[in-house]
Amino acid sequence: MVRMLVLYNHPEDTAAFDKHYNEIHIPLAKQMPGLLRYTVSRNLSKKAPYYLIAELDWEDRDAMRASGDSEIGAKAGADVANFATAGATTMVFEVAEV
Amino acid sequence: MVRMLVLYNHPEDTAAFDKHYNEIHIPLAKQMPGLLRYTVSRNLSKKAPYYLIAELDWEDRDAMRASGDSEIGAKAGADVANFATAGATTMVFEVAEV
Repeated sequence: MVRMLVLYNHPEDTAAFDKHYNEIHIPLAKQMPGLLRYTVSRNLSKKAPYYLIAELDWEDRDAMRASGDSEIGAKAGADVANFATAGATTMVFEVAEV
Repeated sequence: MVRMLVLYNHPEDTAAFDKHYNEIHIPLAKQMPGLLRYTVSRNLSKKAPYYLIAELDWEDRDAMRASGDSEIGAKAGADVANFATAGATTMVFEVAEV
């Protein structure tokens, strides 16, 4: 399984971030084809170095790539700039249970 | 479900880090009581801002706390200083599927 981990920096306006993330970004991103699971952090400590953590899982890299290249994927990717004005760190890796 | 996310900075000596993590830390940490799932990143890009990402899941915060306070939990926690000499960022949050 391939996971995309998105670490969002603390926004200046948390209410605006939350509103956009919950009302626009989640409904859009969760439509991405082939997405197996999409989770977000809840009750992350306010002292944490990131504001919100999103994890999106696909079967493999090909599925993730096709999903990102789809019309919905392109819209979801472009939407990040609309709310993540403080920046975000995105990492992709395979998940290995140990 | 409660998740502990550990983001390890790039070590100076990756071979020593890998050996210690694989041969000592994983066997120790996976014995922590109540641990539901323990995954590590595989094939994380070398350009990623972190070297390795570990995710450890427990049923809830009480279970995580009891696990960390156990003898094995204390040993696993203390062991981190033996290999994460470049530092690590640890965050705890509840996982919400969206």
